[in-house]
Amino acid sequence: MTEQPPAAPSALPRPSSAASAASGASPSGSSPSPAAASFPSPVRIIGTGLIGGSLGLALSGAGVDVQIQDSSPGTESLAVEMGAGHRPGATDAAPELVIVAAPPDVAARLVVEALAAFPDATVCDVASVKATVLSAVRRAAADPAAAISESDLARYVGAHPMAGREVSGVIAARGDLFLARPFVVVPHATSRAESTALVRRLGSEIGSVPLVMDAVDHDLSVAHVSHAPQVVASLLGASLASAPERSLELAGQGLRDTSRIAASDPRLWMEILSANAAAVSPILQEMRDRLDEVLAGLASHTGEDDPAQGSRRAVAQLIADGNIGVRRIPGRHGGAAEHFATITVLVPDRPGELGRLFTEIGETGVNLEDLALEHTFGQKVGIAHVSVQRGSEGLLTQALRERGWTVAEG
Amino acid sequence: MTEQPPAAPSALPRPSSAASAASGASPSGSSPSPAAASFPSPVRIIGTGLIGGSLGLALSGAGVDVQIQDSSPGTESLAVEMGAGHRPGATDAAPELVIVAAPPDVAARLVVEALAAFPDATVCDVASVKATVLSAVRRAAADPAAAISESDLARYVGAHPMAGREVSGVIAARGDLFLARPFVVVPHATSRAESTALVRRLGSEIGSVPLVMDAVDHDLSVAHVSHAPQVVASLLGASLASAPERSLELAGQGLRDTSRIAASDPRLWMEILSANAAAVSPILQEMRDRLDEVLAGLASHTGEDDPAQGSRRAVAQLIADGNIGVRRIPGRHGGAAEHFATITVLVPDRPGELGRLFTEIGETGVNLEDLALEHTFGQKVGIAHVSVQRGSEGLLTQALRERGWTVAEG
Repeated sequence: MTEQPPAAPSALPRPSSAASAASGASPSGSSPSPAAASFPSPVRIIGTGLIGGSLGLALSGAGVDVQIQDSSPGTESLAVEMGAGHRPGATDAAPELVIVAAPPDVAARLVVEALAAFPDATVCDVASVKATVLSAVRRAAADPAAAISESDLARYVGAHPMAGREVSGVIAARGDLFLARPFVVVPHATSRAESTALVRRLGSEIGSVPLVMDAVDHDLSVAHVSHAPQVVASLLGASLASAPERSLELAGQGLRDTSRIAASDPRLWMEILSANAAAVSPILQEMRDRLDEVLAGLASHTGEDDPAQGSRRAVAQLIADGNIGVRRIPGRHGGAAEHFATITVLVPDRPGELGRLFTEIGETGVNLEDLALEHTFGQKVGIAHVSVQRGSEGLLTQALRERGWTVAEG
Repeated sequence: MTEQPPAAPSALPRPSSAASAASGASPSGSSPSPAAASFPSPVRIIGTGLIGGSLGLALSGAGVDVQIQDSSPGTESLAVEMGAGHRPGATDAAPELVIVAAPPDVAARLVVEALAAFPDATVCDVASVKATVLSAVRRAAADPAAAISESDLARYVGAHPMAGREVSGVIAARGDLFLARPFVVVPHATSRAESTALVRRLGSEIGSVPLVMDAVDHDLSVAHVSHAPQVVASLLGASLASAPERSLELAGQGLRDTSRIAASDPRLWMEILSANAAAVSPILQEMRDRLDEVLAGLASHTGEDDPAQGSRRAVAQLIADGNIGVRRIPGRHGGAAEHFATITVLVPDRPGELGRLFTEIGETGVNLEDLALEHTFGQKVGIAHVSVQRGSEGLLTQALRERGWTVAEG
């Protein structure tokens, strides 16, 4: 069901154009690359928040003629000022592609309006949930009183760039937001092949990796990899709101990682979770049932002096099943996690030490797959976790130790 | 209640001794530092798993005479071979300090045995839960038939080094495991001052940051910052066990971070959660109740075509409360997160590029506070999130752009 993108030039990120877009410099004056020159223009973006604004920056940076509009005149002005595009004038050409970048609760209405207003354009939306948007557009197409007909539905294709930030609004937009991220193209049964191809090409154009899913598969997938994690992180974050101050002094990397996305926007997530209730509810219900099992297991221990009493099965089974699930997450390079090894290097907290470390890693010829740096509790030393292809960790460890670094494997 | 360590030399990590310990080279032959020379010797470590083995490596590396013993002869041999210490001989001096490094369910019995076997030694345990261990030791001291008396109890002080790994066993041990981590010293009402001071000094000796809490405060704290996060991550991990394969292709950094610690050891965590059931259960119960509220809110959406219907309050309130809680987590340097700013740099996935980036950051004179590198889905480009003191992000952004890097703020 999932397709890999062809190795076309346009599928590769173009750092130079993304750079000019991100910096806001000469958004339309920069020389477009050959691939960008042939992307159908103009493109209309409706809604210039974080995603719409970032799409505008990415496309403008690639030399595409981008028309932008937002229900808020202030937001629209800021988006123009940032270089996301220009306001459409009365004599401008009609768009070839309309991108609706609005939350799930308003996306369908804007898609229907765009299909009606631009009878030759392909229209896509980039909301995080696809089935509710599609069914609302379908209902409008089937309604004799509506502004669109069944044939207009063929020009609609859903999309979902798997990118975001914990901050929102056009001021947080950046042209490189989508680089190297999955871009899900969501056609429906009667989507035109040209429209599907154009939306797929949009994904490549902004440096993403397009893959195709239907709306139901998409919504189930994001329920698993995005919506359930958000609820879990928020439950944990909310539990910290009432924790004693001194408890938080013991916080380490485990807590930080597990709760990081709890910083996300409540209004947006309210809409996303509500719109995907059908897919995310069964996952959350299963979690609730397992949590009940764990609580029942723990209840047999509460108040007892001897912790050896009572049933431990529910707790051990949960942790063991968690082991199984987390091993299924693909590695950062699309490979399985077991292909990588991690070594740990102690880094004095002084300017230039990290630079020296990475320069010296580069000198060994071993390629870095990933890196995470830890600092804890006011100390002047950092711990760098350096991931490399499995098999090269011994070489790297030895080479770094020879250069005086403190290295531990694992 | 929480005390900061004095600025004593022994409180500073000593990378050179940790280095020799971690590499297994000359564990006892290296020249001890002045501070290490005066640490009371010998030290006996009972139990040489990840924590006991790492304590042995750290102390041996600092020149302390370390006796080790483990109920498994094979594990004990491996620990000796790795340089964690030596088997105690019949003519060896009795230990000044005994460290019991065993899971919560066996720690108390080993503490009581050690108090009986070494009538002049301070005895501590390093189990992750403290109240159940203390109450079992207390019960033994009050039992006329037991091998220890009330006065022996004075030589017992609990401890908890806030360090660990998702892998376990002595083979995963490293001498630098405790560097810069909190080390909780847990005296009880009748602990001798000298014993408390010695255990506190142990924390400094291994490069940790000692702080003092009583057993109840400790157990509540770790329930919040360690045990509840483990359950939440495992619930999420377990939910992935049955997710469709293609769903996982959409996995991003949010899922990876939220589920990372789900890879932890089931047997150990079964014991930890069981032993701390009284403190962790109320936190989990509150989470379960909130999850029920969210499910009830979502149930009003399930099956409806219009997601604008139904109550969203429970969902929005959960996300908002999560915002509040996660902002309370101290920053990596002990400061609040709002003191730092993050810029984002695009890094081509070639050997040496990260080295060049950090060399050039070092040249600007701006000090790195933290760094995280992302890769997604098979693409040959990485995204580096570089955290610096707030106020220096503009300078760094400009300097890096002048050098040709693609930089986005935020």
